[in-house]
Amino acid sequence: MRKNDTRTTPLISTLLLGAAVAAAPALSFAGGSGAPSEYIRPMIGTQGEGNVYPGPSAPFGMMQISPDTDKELWATASGYEYSDPTILGFSLTHLSGTGIPDLGDFLFIPQVGAPAFESGTKDKPEEGYQSTYSHENETASAGYYKVTLDKPEVTVELTAGLRAGMLRFTFPASDDASIMTDLAHVLSGGRWKVAQSHVRIEDESTVTGFHIINGWAKERHLFFAARYSRPFDEGVIISKGEPVVYDSHKNYRFRSCKEAAGTDLRFLAKYKTAENETIQVKVAVSTVSAANALENLDSELPHWNFEQVVKETRQRWDRELACIRIDGSQTEKETFYTAMYHAFLTPNTHQDVNGQYRGFDQNIHTVEGANKYTIFSLWDTYRATHPLFALVQAERNSDMINSMLAHYDQSVDHLLPVWELQANETWCMIGYHAVPVIADAYLKGNTGFDPERAYEAIKTTAMNPHYDAVAEYTELGWVPFDQENEAVSKTLEYAYDDFTIAQMAKALGKMDDYAYFMKRAASYKNIYDPETGFMRGRDSDGNWRTPFDPQGFVQGGDFTEGTSWQYSWYVPHDVPGLIELFGGQDAFCKKLDQLFTLNSEENGDPEVDDIYGRIGEYWHGNEPSHHIIYLYSLAGQPWKAQRLLRQVIQTQYGTKPGSLTGNDDCGQMSAWYIFTCLGFYPVAPASDYYVIGAPQMKEIAMNLSNGNRFTMTAHNLSEENMYVQSVKLNGKTWNSTLLPFKELSKGGSLAFEMGPKPSRWGVQP
Amino acid sequence: MRKNDTRTTPLISTLLLGAAVAAAPALSFAGGSGAPSEYIRPMIGTQGEGNVYPGPSAPFGMMQISPDTDKELWATASGYEYSDPTILGFSLTHLSGTGIPDLGDFLFIPQVGAPAFESGTKDKPEEGYQSTYSHENETASAGYYKVTLDKPEVTVELTAGLRAGMLRFTFPASDDASIMTDLAHVLSGGRWKVAQSHVRIEDESTVTGFHIINGWAKERHLFFAARYSRPFDEGVIISKGEPVVYDSHKNYRFRSCKEAAGTDLRFLAKYKTAENETIQVKVAVSTVSAANALENLDSELPHWNFEQVVKETRQRWDRELACIRIDGSQTEKETFYTAMYHAFLTPNTHQDVNGQYRGFDQNIHTVEGANKYTIFSLWDTYRATHPLFALVQAERNSDMINSMLAHYDQSVDHLLPVWELQANETWCMIGYHAVPVIADAYLKGNTGFDPERAYEAIKTTAMNPHYDAVAEYTELGWVPFDQENEAVSKTLEYAYDDFTIAQMAKALGKMDDYAYFMKRAASYKNIYDPETGFMRGRDSDGNWRTPFDPQGFVQGGDFTEGTSWQYSWYVPHDVPGLIELFGGQDAFCKKLDQLFTLNSEENGDPEVDDIYGRIGEYWHGNEPSHHIIYLYSLAGQPWKAQRLLRQVIQTQYGTKPGSLTGNDDCGQMSAWYIFTCLGFYPVAPASDYYVIGAPQMKEIAMNLSNGNRFTMTAHNLSEENMYVQSVKLNGKTWNSTLLPFKELSKGGSLAFEMGPKPSRWGVQP
Repeated sequence: MRKNDTRTTPLISTLLLGAAVAAAPALSFAGGSGAPSEYIRPMIGTQGEGNVYPGPSAPFGMMQISPDTDKELWATASGYEYSDPTILGFSLTHLSGTGIPDLGDFLFIPQVGAPAFESGTKDKPEEGYQSTYSHENETASAGYYKVTLDKPEVTVELTAGLRAGMLRFTFPASDDASIMTDLAHVLSGGRWKVAQSHVRIEDESTVTGFHIINGWAKERHLFFAARYSRPFDEGVIISKGEPVVYDSHKNYRFRSCKEAAGTDLRFLAKYKTAENETIQVKVAVSTVSAANALENLDSELPHWNFEQVVKETRQRWDRELACIRIDGSQTEKETFYTAMYHAFLTPNTHQDVNGQYRGFDQNIHTVEGANKYTIFSLWDTYRATHPLFALVQAERNSDMINSMLAHYDQSVDHLLPVWELQANETWCMIGYHAVPVIADAYLKGNTGFDPERAYEAIKTTAMNPHYDAVAEYTELGWVPFDQENEAVSKTLEYAYDDFTIAQMAKALGKMDDYAYFMKRAASYKNIYDPETGFMRGRDSDGNWRTPFDPQGFVQGGDFTEGTSWQYSWYVPHDVPGLIELFGGQDAFCKKLDQLFTLNSEENGDPEVDDIYGRIGEYWHGNEPSHHIIYLYSLAGQPWKAQRLLRQVIQTQYGTKPGSLTGNDDCGQMSAWYIFTCLGFYPVAPASDYYVIGAPQMKEIAMNLSNGNRFTMTAHNLSEENMYVQSVKLNGKTWNSTLLPFKELSKGGSLAFEMGPKPSRWGVQP
Repeated sequence: MRKNDTRTTPLISTLLLGAAVAAAPALSFAGGSGAPSEYIRPMIGTQGEGNVYPGPSAPFGMMQISPDTDKELWATASGYEYSDPTILGFSLTHLSGTGIPDLGDFLFIPQVGAPAFESGTKDKPEEGYQSTYSHENETASAGYYKVTLDKPEVTVELTAGLRAGMLRFTFPASDDASIMTDLAHVLSGGRWKVAQSHVRIEDESTVTGFHIINGWAKERHLFFAARYSRPFDEGVIISKGEPVVYDSHKNYRFRSCKEAAGTDLRFLAKYKTAENETIQVKVAVSTVSAANALENLDSELPHWNFEQVVKETRQRWDRELACIRIDGSQTEKETFYTAMYHAFLTPNTHQDVNGQYRGFDQNIHTVEGANKYTIFSLWDTYRATHPLFALVQAERNSDMINSMLAHYDQSVDHLLPVWELQANETWCMIGYHAVPVIADAYLKGNTGFDPERAYEAIKTTAMNPHYDAVAEYTELGWVPFDQENEAVSKTLEYAYDDFTIAQMAKALGKMDDYAYFMKRAASYKNIYDPETGFMRGRDSDGNWRTPFDPQGFVQGGDFTEGTSWQYSWYVPHDVPGLIELFGGQDAFCKKLDQLFTLNSEENGDPEVDDIYGRIGEYWHGNEPSHHIIYLYSLAGQPWKAQRLLRQVIQTQYGTKPGSLTGNDDCGQMSAWYIFTCLGFYPVAPASDYYVIGAPQMKEIAMNLSNGNRFTMTAHNLSEENMYVQSVKLNGKTWNSTLLPFKELSKGGSLAFEMGPKPSRWGVQP
């Protein structure tokens, strides 16, 4: 039974690694125990482009209770920007690392003095309820967040379990203290709106509510329940800035003050407080109903022990993080375990305690004995996040795939999810990347889903006659730019996706399909322009896009958040074929050299979000570049990969709020980091190999989901010793830059010998 | 098991009455069989104030599929006004006889030629989809409606089962025929709006959809499902007047054309049709989900046999109407059985086939082995409709009471329903009239609910400290007009409601409560002003409302949709007490005489809706007057009641579209008619007697729900012979104008001897 996600201790103990771990059992959580959760730094990535949130969440949890500093700025997609001077309040749900804002449902705001109903501005917080705060008065750790707000002098602490959490407010003495809940709050980026909401004062210490948001998700239904540790002195609903009062005189007919509907609702719990009085609020959400939110709350948080929730959530994190254990410095541990934390936040648990969830068809469905997940940022996460899950989170990965298959079943278009958000399809980004996730999981031995059913969904998706010019792609061999935006990127990503279908077809013995999709997988060749040496748009008649600038970027042009310079490398499934197109290894590597040294500034700043972390024209902050460095390893110049990987690790990751140079994108930036530290990367998920780069930790032990243990050691690794000198796989010399999955999956050891200078290791691929 | 509301034939046959019925078994439905459903004339009341709809519905059905001629006019609350020249289309749900519009969910519109997405106007229907029609091409009968529209030359036929119905469109030959569904349609009276809606093309012949309406019900969720007998040639969603098309080119990211959300959605099923080709659409609704709507549809209408649905719905009507059988003329039968039809349309079945319904708390609840009902127009229906149900629909009445108790359980205010509309509380009108419904049902022997639980709900409701100045009423003995609108009406209705609580308390042995509520029941005396001889407002200090005009009406003044002239009679539970206040029988009757002869025109036209059917200052078109004529019978001048009852029956009821002079109000106007025809009326429901008036049919047989049979005969009744000469109850002379419930409930006979002149019968009450 996974429904309540409570794993037992015996199961966990089998995951613990080696002697160091035996000395620091994951389930104890005294400070300094060395448990991985102690190294989680939720503030990493909260400044700038990372777009993660600092508030607490359980692994893959339903709730992400976190402070919001902004709701209007598109760039502040998670609601929190470390540089912002003020906090609006604390809302219950957040997206982790996306480039588009949404969620931020149900904002809780403590106030002292006459309550404001509007927020004021960052410049003039005194005009509303938002408050300045200092990072000195703010801490964030696994399962816990704390801040003291300047204006109301209220200390706010947050914790979150799987489906329920707690807010603890410590008030000064006041005759006029309050906790307001804003049902109209949503991280809107200035665009989204509340279509409908209602609130009910269920009893003297319980409130439930609901809203539908027309947002990134076009129709998102979310319910909440809140229980207060002290009955309200007064509980008031505010509608459009006016208290809702019992009134049949003024309004002609009776009106209840205990329930209201509208689009601009708040609930105000008013209290007289003593000095340092704490008032706690237990909260839960549900996509199904207020009754389910209450059931989530009452069954997961039957007590008021805030510390116990923190402790249990940290235990959850330790259990999840036990699958990979590193030996490294404090900074490395903080960076690495926080990367794992970010990789294991999303997708989110979708089903309530009773197994119900609101599906893509807006009907209520039930899942039993498994988890239903939501929020699939697949254009990002198919690259490294799901491949990581396939290795160390196989059970969850299978449940995620079953969640995608449920979405497919509920889709009127018979399509697997593209970018799923709380049972909505945002259609964000391109490709059909649920396909490589499923194919990779199947080929990596994840067994928790029906492969035939999954294959049918895959094939139907890839044969859809309407989706993004797939039909034209199938007919012509490329997506014609006169028919479709981002035609080159789509051609390339379809071709890769098709390769993964072919691999799964082959494994299932469907050799006709294998041949068919392998043919489609070679489509990349159709858009390679030998004259310019780049991937280039072609129209329906086969004419090349003219004029053509491989460094040029046009929103809605032939490339997706990038240029031909980046996308021309996107043939992860047939690098030898690409090398051949580019004129052999030397030409290929020379072109790669150019990529990393081009001065993109000269070309002007492309008008595109999400592209940061530049090394020349390589933009690590966005996903199309993520596999590129590893191509050196496949083209006979692995030392260049080794140097660049070190550069990226050192300059684009770290322990500071601004250390993430791009959107974490539901864990993809972090999963790239984890694989890279391990010394290899899934350049082509659903292929049977990983590509060896350069290890970034002295030792990493990985408990694979299949029960085998795999260890990576990097002897002599140091600041200077970034270059691979030699490799042993299970004690035997290993000269290939390919790490076969079949070797990895058996467990064993990968031992690097590192040195300060490039070696000839791996030069002949 | 009542869940599917399928009663078996044997049960029915025991309900059939006498020889005439044996010759015309209710289950056969050949024309001319004399089955009661043959006399149902749904057009009665569709013109003017009746506000009923002509389309088909099963008894207490979930669906009321009916043509809408207007959606903007407040007065056209049912969507259909017989005088309107055009039809907009055919929507799935309707309120029967209310004074406020709502419902009209999901309008189906057939078109030929380029489809219009907007309606046009009555004056210029050619500018939109609405069409002129002729009543000559229109028929309505039980379970069936048919019209031929002029413009598209399409014949539309409608039928409805309990939870699913069918529309049949007969098209001319056309390359461009269509059936459009408008999800934004609602009978808005110009005020209500769609908060959110979505539509999904589930497959090539199935559509589902949803909307939330902010209407009279503040947040009403309704889903529909539709299956088409022929796959669409093309199925198109229209959003804000523009087709939703597959498009990733124009809109940057992919968009599905098979689903959309918004507030202005239509679905267009396009067809090429042959001459006289019929296309049928099966439809169902649900308050829970699209899945439930589909389940309702598929389980109740697994076939495409339109005629079978009509036949089965007529059989349902015959089964329901079998409880009262009359002997009378064709006109009398049409009037009477249509009155029963109107009385048995509402409340509506609320739970889906699987027992689920959306409750007042917006959570999904399940009812098993019983019916959950919705739409309780209690200020109207407590008077005669529920008292009729208590006698002949005991099982349903108990289920209705259990539905009210569920509402109470789901109410944050711990109040029984006031005016419930699809799990919303509209708070319409005044009083707590669920109370007399429950008390009356209990005292009349309806056993299908828990009386202790019901009593607790009743008492809690009547002791609510916030609702409409009940607290002030309790403290002062009257509702003070400086604190509350309609203070006099509220005082009087509370006092009556309290009398009914006292009666139930007494029966349950709660003698303290009996005494307490009987004291409250006497509150009417506190607002009788002996100086003017009228019920008159008092303020918190006891001062009389000054100036005071007993014929004056002020919206939001001291009276509810009426004047002191009408409300001063509202002491149904203590008429002897009222007679005493008014100075004895003679003075009382003189004042009554005045009521019926006052020229209200002189006083100007009061600015109030719903007041029609005037005889002097007696306004039969609205409920506060409904018991007044019977007061003559209780004050020693019963012949005046007999004459006036005849006058009302002859002038304010009949078989024409305009025959209902007031809002039918979910059956109250019709239930008044039924009781009055029977010769008696529940002046004070929850008392132990009815008041004898004057029979209006030669013979009526009533199968009581307790299994006993009661017959009323009116010997010598004729146009002229309107006066009661003598009465025999079970063969014995009966000189009282009171008919005890205990006599009625035993069954037996009430035999009137009628004559052309007033007699002395009943003069000594």
